[in-house]
Amino acid sequence: MYTEIPSGVTAPKGFYSTGVHCGIKKVKKDLALVYSEASAAGAAVFTTSKVQAAPVIVDKLQFKRSSVFQAVVVNSGNANACTGEPGLNDAWSMVKATAAALNIREEGVLVSSTGVIGQYLPIDKVRSGIVDAVSLLGVEGHAAAAEAIMTTDTFMKELAITLDLEGVKVTIGGMAKGSGMIAPNMATMLGFVTTDAAITREMLQTALKRAVDRSFNRISVDGDTSTNDMVVVLANGLAGNPVIQNESDSGFSLFYDALEFLLVKLSKMIVVDGEGATKFVEIVVSGAVDEDQAVCAAKSIANSNLVKTAINGEDANWGRILAAIGYSGIDFDPAAVEIFFDNLPILKQNYLIDFSEARAKEILCQKEIRITVDLHQGGSSASFWTCDLSKEYVAINANYRT
Amino acid sequence: MYTEIPSGVTAPKGFYSTGVHCGIKKVKKDLALVYSEASAAGAAVFTTSKVQAAPVIVDKLQFKRSSVFQAVVVNSGNANACTGEPGLNDAWSMVKATAAALNIREEGVLVSSTGVIGQYLPIDKVRSGIVDAVSLLGVEGHAAAAEAIMTTDTFMKELAITLDLEGVKVTIGGMAKGSGMIAPNMATMLGFVTTDAAITREMLQTALKRAVDRSFNRISVDGDTSTNDMVVVLANGLAGNPVIQNESDSGFSLFYDALEFLLVKLSKMIVVDGEGATKFVEIVVSGAVDEDQAVCAAKSIANSNLVKTAINGEDANWGRILAAIGYSGIDFDPAAVEIFFDNLPILKQNYLIDFSEARAKEILCQKEIRITVDLHQGGSSASFWTCDLSKEYVAINANYRT
Repeated sequence: MYTEIPSGVTAPKGFYSTGVHCGIKKVKKDLALVYSEASAAGAAVFTTSKVQAAPVIVDKLQFKRSSVFQAVVVNSGNANACTGEPGLNDAWSMVKATAAALNIREEGVLVSSTGVIGQYLPIDKVRSGIVDAVSLLGVEGHAAAAEAIMTTDTFMKELAITLDLEGVKVTIGGMAKGSGMIAPNMATMLGFVTTDAAITREMLQTALKRAVDRSFNRISVDGDTSTNDMVVVLANGLAGNPVIQNESDSGFSLFYDALEFLLVKLSKMIVVDGEGATKFVEIVVSGAVDEDQAVCAAKSIANSNLVKTAINGEDANWGRILAAIGYSGIDFDPAAVEIFFDNLPILKQNYLIDFSEARAKEILCQKEIRITVDLHQGGSSASFWTCDLSKEYVAINANYRT
Repeated sequence: MYTEIPSGVTAPKGFYSTGVHCGIKKVKKDLALVYSEASAAGAAVFTTSKVQAAPVIVDKLQFKRSSVFQAVVVNSGNANACTGEPGLNDAWSMVKATAAALNIREEGVLVSSTGVIGQYLPIDKVRSGIVDAVSLLGVEGHAAAAEAIMTTDTFMKELAITLDLEGVKVTIGGMAKGSGMIAPNMATMLGFVTTDAAITREMLQTALKRAVDRSFNRISVDGDTSTNDMVVVLANGLAGNPVIQNESDSGFSLFYDALEFLLVKLSKMIVVDGEGATKFVEIVVSGAVDEDQAVCAAKSIANSNLVKTAINGEDANWGRILAAIGYSGIDFDPAAVEIFFDNLPILKQNYLIDFSEARAKEILCQKEIRITVDLHQGGSSASFWTCDLSKEYVAINANYRT
């Protein structure tokens, strides 16, 4: 559908990045910088948690002060959350140091953090790391940046695609971390997207919000939500396409579809790298009255510890799936429901069960499984992505901090 | 506060019970019967799941047909859920067989099931089990009944208390199963309460609903809700107290308090016996604007896999507690929050952290832990009870069915 290119946030024109080790972590890279040579329209979505990390609070203010941005600075290893006034000062300090080193406006810098909460940043180290990072910025720096935002992630998550936007080649790049949904005291999910598309801030925000609802908001490792979650997109317009100004512009839907495609890909990478995950599971709920109800049912299945442990044990325990829809809050007729594992019917209408346990086991033994639930109520459907719940998840999280 | 007596559902005057093996399970008891010699006012609360087991559907109809009851018949080993029309016929068949064997009205019999879903009951075996059970009814049968409703429970859960109700001795007995919150494909929670108090059906329902909200609805093993959950109370009036007819009757609050006390005790037993549980955890949220907000915050903490794994690992990871309140949906100021483990302050206001890791570890190594969160917003508080999340939980649930 789109041309994927082996790159990340520096694939679009005019974007440069890098990742360095500044000293928050012992050895690994812990500071990423993404820079746009031209002012870029910015859009973002933030965690819905009432406990908001300092960088989230600072970025929300930055979005009030400015509508264009040129840089995003991100540290890993420390979430700068639950750190009060000193933490806010540190986040502002990162903004100022980045603006000074890049010689750009302070209002044009966004900041992000992920890692342990309740500890102060070693801010002097971070500040000198920022100076180092600025000197190392380049188009080759996408992988270093993707590496520097990792916490317990076991692999980098980046991607770039090109699309033809009415005769103009437009590029979108992105990187994310998760997996580490739930890692250092927390379940931080960060996503950074760059594009050279020309699009207004309003349309960019509309596209981002909608695409996040269909990608990052449709994955679940353990149902915990972080204090630091954010997804940011910068669009610097250097591709030269006619500026996308309205939803009715034909360019909008082309751009939106590409953005959703990229975010869904990054989201799936996060699930594959879920802590302790041994299986990637796609939950498809079809035949729903509307998309919201489909998402609600799918999310309930994806978050059920009972469903997730059964998948871990490769056990065709369809009753737990039906039970999870039962308490999801949607209105439906259980007797109308059909359940499939891949293409194998497991539960037919009127509670008819007649499947080969051997064949079901074969499907559940795969690394990737699709569970489809047809509610037979209407024409809407939704996908949700999750992983199994393993003993490793418990082991990783029982002793994270100590 | 109350006099506890070593008994269960037969402690109140005029109640008889037993538990037998009818053949649903291989060897263990799988059929319980509770009988009141006098017509008893009945009240019940049922699962909120949209997927309702056959006995739940039947009992709701029975409550429409009648306001007094004399028997409850319960089988374990098979939930009679997702069994369609044949399942409904089987549930009615249990009602009829019980009424016939006891020579009472069919409208006076309630039915309940717990176990594997999606399978039909061996109804002939169940019917002859009912005849056996009737012949064995007695005041000594409380333990056999409590045993016969168990699934993966590792111990029986029963209790009886007496109270002085304006000079009249009133007794309340109860039994429950859980633990097994999440056991046979399901998280069935059943509770059966008997009392010789004289109380109208309306007041009994009011008291039950309120007490369940403060007991069974405040425990969590894994957050999954069953298709079969129910709590039933029968009050036969044989104690001879003045009939409780209004909430303003002084007898009502005395009876309510005793009922809540008994249900909380049974609820805690369920948590202690939670699948894979190694620790019992009381979550107390105080300083809330109202009780609903306190419950909401406490429930979010109690259901967090990250909090539960940290407790399993005996790790003083307070950040996960604050994060769980953050996404609970309540409005609060994170900087105002204080967190205690037992009496040890862990987090003070303005994110001040200054505690002995050694002392915190000592507390977390106990079998029972109390986590107190003071929101410093208002005067309301609530308790919630949960257990840790262990590798054993995953092991038990990964391969339950096969």
